Amino acid sequence: MACESVTPARGAVFDMMEEMLAPLGFQVHRFIRGEGPEGSEEEPVENLFAIRHGPEGSKHFAFAGHLDVVPPGEGWESGAFEPEERGELLYGRGAVDMKGAIGCMVAAVADIPADAGTISFVITGDEEGPALHGTRALIDLMRERGEIPDLCLVGEPTSVNKLGDMMKIGRRGSVNIWLEAEGTQGHVAYPHLADNPMPKMVAILAELDALVLDEGTEWFQPSNLEITEFNVPNKAHNVIPGKATARISIRFNDLHSGASLSERVTTIAGKHGGTARPVISGEPFLTPPGDFSRAIAAAIEAETGIDPESSTTGGTSDARFLKDLCPVIEFGLVNATMHKTDEAVAIADLATLSRIYRRIAMTALGEGT
Amino acid sequence: MACESVTPARGAVFDMMEEMLAPLGFQVHRFIRGEGPEGSEEEPVENLFAIRHGPEGSKHFAFAGHLDVVPPGEGWESGAFEPEERGELLYGRGAVDMKGAIGCMVAAVADIPADAGTISFVITGDEEGPALHGTRALIDLMRERGEIPDLCLVGEPTSVNKLGDMMKIGRRGSVNIWLEAEGTQGHVAYPHLADNPMPKMVAILAELDALVLDEGTEWFQPSNLEITEFNVPNKAHNVIPGKATARISIRFNDLHSGASLSERVTTIAGKHGGTARPVISGEPFLTPPGDFSRAIAAAIEAETGIDPESSTTGGTSDARFLKDLCPVIEFGLVNATMHKTDEAVAIADLATLSRIYRRIAMTALGEGT
Ligand SMILES: [Zn+2]
Ligand SMILES: [Zn+2]
Repeated sequence: MACESVTPARGAVFDMMEEMLAPLGFQVHRFIRGEGPEGSEEEPVENLFAIRHGPEGSKHFAFAGHLDVVPPGEGWESGAFEPEERGELLYGRGAVDMKGAIGCMVAAVADIPADAGTISFVITGDEEGPALHGTRALIDLMRERGEIPDLCLVGEPTSVNKLGDMMKIGRRGSVNIWLEAEGTQGHVAYPHLADNPMPKMVAILAELDALVLDEGTEWFQPSNLEITEFNVPNKAHNVIPGKATARISIRFNDLHSGASLSERVTTIAGKHGGTARPVISGEPFLTPPGDFSRAIAAAIEAETGIDPESSTTGGTSDARFLKDLCPVIEFGLVNATMHKTDEAVAIADLATLSRIYRRIAMTALGEGT
Repeated sequence: MACESVTPARGAVFDMMEEMLAPLGFQVHRFIRGEGPEGSEEEPVENLFAIRHGPEGSKHFAFAGHLDVVPPGEGWESGAFEPEERGELLYGRGAVDMKGAIGCMVAAVADIPADAGTISFVITGDEEGPALHGTRALIDLMRERGEIPDLCLVGEPTSVNKLGDMMKIGRRGSVNIWLEAEGTQGHVAYPHLADNPMPKMVAILAELDALVLDEGTEWFQPSNLEITEFNVPNKAHNVIPGKATARISIRFNDLHSGASLSERVTTIAGKHGGTARPVISGEPFLTPPGDFSRAIAAAIEAETGIDPESSTTGGTSDARFLKDLCPVIEFGLVNATMHKTDEAVAIADLATLSRIYRRIAMTALGEGT
């Protein structure tokens, strides 16, 4: 936490990670991707894949996470990158999202015998940023090396009020769609010489807003569409604008795909004389309740007495990529202070989470606890 | 035309006007209104009221117009404020809108005997600008002095293809209405914690766009509503905006008033959870065809052989204020180049228009021609 690692992260924080994993018998592979200037979407980002092989035929369990953090912002009581214990809390950027959890993963592994099975770390420096060259590049590497895990746990801060009260067995997908309607600029006193694109855009948005995408599923809440932008500034009171642009954002469950929604919105836009340009941020994922979620719930209950809720709410995470490799579930610290000033973790939770992670890994490797 | 008099106009161009009118026997009253800094809506503006009284009991005929001009813009062949004759045209800013016409008024009056009746000039330096302290202030002055005309002719360039083909017996009213819908900003992944104002605004605009205000009248085209602005910029793809603002512009005929439309739009906005802030730019006016329009048509036909169309199309003019004093009609030069680069008037039209104006004034004063 003392390493400044605002997204995209490189260097020192990865040196420290390597120094912790190497003594535990891990082969550590680090690489940098991205060739753009600082501040661009293509700014270089570091990734780390570390693996400790168990005996021939072992199961492979992966811990996944990110070492980058969101910018600290203003108003911290102690330095955002000068971790400080005050009372029962440890303060610092990344305390819960998610350097704290990564520390717990390492502590858990330190307590797991090498012959229990294959364990890997899938750690990116670009989860909070554009995520172009982060976990996706790690997945490519794992595929090239043939190191596909059987199960994967992402250490995002999923707990809400108390450590253990929630895990994420899925996440909704996300697509942003830019809408445009062309017209012909003109003067309001001579509307027959102009073609106002605003009514077209209003009709598109009215129809989109009236859509009921679904009623939700057993595991997902209903898909939701929000109008997020309508950007036609116009200082001149007498001018009919020549073009109307707007944007919507859809968070959708596994009844849809980014492509199916894009097609649907494009059709509606076209019907009213507009066009649509979709950018899919992530497809939904769901690891339906089963052995893996039961193992996690059992580990949590053994250490905290809490029976965790299986949720699919909230934003996207890198689990949207990892789901292509194997079943993936997210579980981690209490997220109340994530991305905020004075981000902090209960020090006691770190020890508890380490033990929970150890139990999960052991069960996943088929070793029991 | 050699006097730079971009709106709001003061000084030299009024000096010249006074120098032309005084020798013709006019009492000239000039005054400046507005106390704001340059460039503001309250920038000082000059006005001129000049009157030559006829014998006791005379009718009072008023010529009205403006000495300010719109900015010259770029690309003139000769200087915008260096009037130049090339071929049969005289080039310069204000040639048709409307220093040319004001020159014709003065020439007409020079040819009218003083005992024909009372003639006045109602000349502002702020018609092309906000018009806060222009013709309205002149009307106040005329009321104070008890100099209310019986008929008024505004010299706006109403002719379209040939001098005499169109006069304006009315103008539509104009109201701009700012719309606002409040919500609560939030994250698209947690829409239940937010309240997106965009659907409210879309619903307001959809209902407004579907309104059929009227089908037009014998003299007016249908009232028309245009959505001119919807300004909710939003760089963040994941943010539900907290407020939506838009603007509409209505040009309306005499079946409505600015107040009746404002109330109607406010009700619709309120129904969908929004608010409306109307700014009425002008009420409609109509001088129904009758003696005055017939006198103008006869004068035009006598000089040009053309029977003018009586129109109510186009934007607003200061006739919207003058109508409160007496019947008002607009007639002037060909408007093809008004507000454009290389604004120009056919030199021959200036002599013709002077004779038309003379005939109109003589008839209005009950003197025949
Ligand atoms: Zn995170
Ligand atoms: Zn004008």
